[in-house]
Amino acid sequence: MEMKTVKIGLMGFGNIGVGTYKTLEMNRAVIAANTGIDFEIVKILEKDVDRKRDVVVPREKFTQNPDDLFLDPQIDIVIELLGGIQPATDFMQKAMNNGKHVVTANKAAVAANYDELRKTAADNQVLFRYEASVAGGIPILSALTGPLLGNDFVEVLGILNGTTNYILSQMADAGLAYEDVLKTAQEKGFAEADPTADVEGIDVANKLSILISLIFGERVAPKDIPTEGISKITKEDIEKASAEGNKIKLIGKAKKENGTLTYSVKPTMIPFSHPLAGVNNEFNAVFVKGNAVDELMFYGKGAGPLPTGSAIMGDVIEIGKAMAKNAAYDQVVAGGRK
Amino acid sequence: MEMKTVKIGLMGFGNIGVGTYKTLEMNRAVIAANTGIDFEIVKILEKDVDRKRDVVVPREKFTQNPDDLFLDPQIDIVIELLGGIQPATDFMQKAMNNGKHVVTANKAAVAANYDELRKTAADNQVLFRYEASVAGGIPILSALTGPLLGNDFVEVLGILNGTTNYILSQMADAGLAYEDVLKTAQEKGFAEADPTADVEGIDVANKLSILISLIFGERVAPKDIPTEGISKITKEDIEKASAEGNKIKLIGKAKKENGTLTYSVKPTMIPFSHPLAGVNNEFNAVFVKGNAVDELMFYGKGAGPLPTGSAIMGDVIEIGKAMAKNAAYDQVVAGGRK
Repeated sequence: MEMKTVKIGLMGFGNIGVGTYKTLEMNRAVIAANTGIDFEIVKILEKDVDRKRDVVVPREKFTQNPDDLFLDPQIDIVIELLGGIQPATDFMQKAMNNGKHVVTANKAAVAANYDELRKTAADNQVLFRYEASVAGGIPILSALTGPLLGNDFVEVLGILNGTTNYILSQMADAGLAYEDVLKTAQEKGFAEADPTADVEGIDVANKLSILISLIFGERVAPKDIPTEGISKITKEDIEKASAEGNKIKLIGKAKKENGTLTYSVKPTMIPFSHPLAGVNNEFNAVFVKGNAVDELMFYGKGAGPLPTGSAIMGDVIEIGKAMAKNAAYDQVVAGGRK
Repeated sequence: MEMKTVKIGLMGFGNIGVGTYKTLEMNRAVIAANTGIDFEIVKILEKDVDRKRDVVVPREKFTQNPDDLFLDPQIDIVIELLGGIQPATDFMQKAMNNGKHVVTANKAAVAANYDELRKTAADNQVLFRYEASVAGGIPILSALTGPLLGNDFVEVLGILNGTTNYILSQMADAGLAYEDVLKTAQEKGFAEADPTADVEGIDVANKLSILISLIFGERVAPKDIPTEGISKITKEDIEKASAEGNKIKLIGKAKKENGTLTYSVKPTMIPFSHPLAGVNNEFNAVFVKGNAVDELMFYGKGAGPLPTGSAIMGDVIEIGKAMAKNAAYDQVVAGGRK
């Protein structure tokens, strides 16, 4: 088999960017052996070249000018890891307008501009993939848009945020108050300095919006999902739940009944016997119910540099395989049902 | 989007065949809307036309002559659900030699003739998929050969047989003896009249052999996997395990350490805190560890007509999508990590 080469531009070199770089370095030979494709990150958009990172990157790969990625004819795929809605959305669209396939982990941008990003991809006949935007390393979007396409879906629910699941797990296990666990989580790097997006459920609403699009083919903007976070959960709430045989989990849920779709993000009682009750700390899990496959649960690390790097590289490899086949743009491969 | 048509021949119309037929009937419109492809089962190889089944099939679809499938130019995909190594393997190869893509749920045939079947597919530039052969409705093979390709794998273990997991769960929950639960399981249709392949671990060894091929790229014949079943497990064994905080589960496991692959099928102590301990009755779960994604678990129904139908239709749809793109034969899409 003749070895093909696919060249990548990376936008953003924080934790996830470094995790993606490390995942590829670590497994480049294995990936090449399994796919016949040699993937290489050739340019990195990042201002802070000198920050201490546990990976060695040749200095000449760094640039501060996004056009160095958009206009470089050797770059096939742009990975967007800047976070936030803008300029990430603009940058992804510019990359597509210049014929680049795009992979992102950016749930906020995908949830806010789902239709626009997919339309730009379609207009430019490029692929747009975002597996890492929901549930980190868990390959849930690929499953929904691939091997589960033979189903009509009834329900999706999940633990989709590692920070809040860590806080709730620690409150339950150690009998601690919310504020104390949050403080420790921030010290350990499990929670951000401003934890609002996580603890108020906004991050979960973004991810649920993306899941709803893929599973039910309907667009519900994150701001239209009734959302309640965990910042008002007390030690006493958790003790009471436990005494009644339940765990409190922050659950994103969408359900279709008699043609009507309902959805919410809120702290929810989960009986000890339910598979989601055993999902603790930084782990995520997504539970789906299809009319043929019945109940399925996917469990794994919902965040972290390498698990997220695994999801990003999975998307990159899918695009590389499609390129190797000279495949035309395909709506389903691009990640949507409909 | 112009609607394409893909026509299917089905070999075998027992529980799984009927489940596949029902899955397609139930979701044909949804699948067409999501993929732009109208799938139709046009011929069914089955001797017993008059058996009572809870699905209505036009009589003219049945045939007793396999050549009616192999030689019919309108048939694009043959689904093999005869079970057993022969004549299933011969039939799959004949279908491929006649230019048909092949989908199967037949773990015994795939495990026994993995290289030969893949070679015949490659020689004929057709696709060969077998998602349903391992863990029923759980899309584990698609995950391993798609979104998880960015990993080097360390370990796989799983509860891969619903019959034995049902027996062990019932023994633990109801405090019953092996023979009594087996009898009830046979009456309920959860165990076959001759349960040997299930209870002696042979079925799990077949599935583990397939997983090893995909995950580690090595061929280990089922007969070369040290295999111990559950027929010698006593009520007392289970009580003792429980008192020590463990469940006894029939586990298929393969692990690579310092370049050496070890594997086994045997009853194994699983601590109550491990995610696999909560997998009960007819449910299956597969646990994999990759060097980037870390721990992942997939949980769902490992058997049953509709869950298996979901897996089979997932493969059929992947092939339909590849046909729609006029994709050339591709080693990775065909299901292997080499």
